[in-house]
Amino acid sequence: MSEQEKTRATVDIFGQQFKIVGTESTSHMRLVASIVDDKMREISQMNPSLDINKLAVLTAVNVVHDYIKLKEEYEKLEKERRTKKE
Amino acid sequence: MSEQEKTRATVDIFGQQFKIVGTESTSHMRLVASIVDDKMREISQMNPSLDINKLAVLTAVNVVHDYIKLKEEYEKLEKERRTKKE
Repeated sequence: MSEQEKTRATVDIFGQQFKIVGTESTSHMRLVASIVDDKMREISQMNPSLDINKLAVLTAVNVVHDYIKLKEEYEKLEKERRTKKE
Repeated sequence: MSEQEKTRATVDIFGQQFKIVGTESTSHMRLVASIVDDKMREISQMNPSLDINKLAVLTAVNVVHDYIKLKEEYEKLEKERRTKKE
């Protein structure tokens, strides 16, 4: 992919600025950043004593957990579809 | 949920120990932790100058991006299923 096709966005997550480069639209990048920001604030409220570094790691843990659960649902649906086709 | 039903696991992510409490099995918790650990190492290799805090936030950004993409795929499949039922 050429340099021209890349999208750049500066987003704010938990009071820090990040320069993100990717192939998605700026609005997608902002959506992703706002979800991470929301999750960090949610986890921070439940654990006010966490330092920002542990908070960010636990946010990632949380999102990976959600990802695996969704992946299981996706595979269930996919399997169902295959079974019907046979 | 009572205290007895909760699972506790100590996991290692990017050289730091985390005590995780949840309702999932210990093996699920370890799987989640190892995925976060892998992703942090992958992003760290691509951006060696990142401090651990920014690295963890960018890992969360990365995973949320994957989550949204999977969610789109899931919704496509779900819509397809609904259309066939009608």
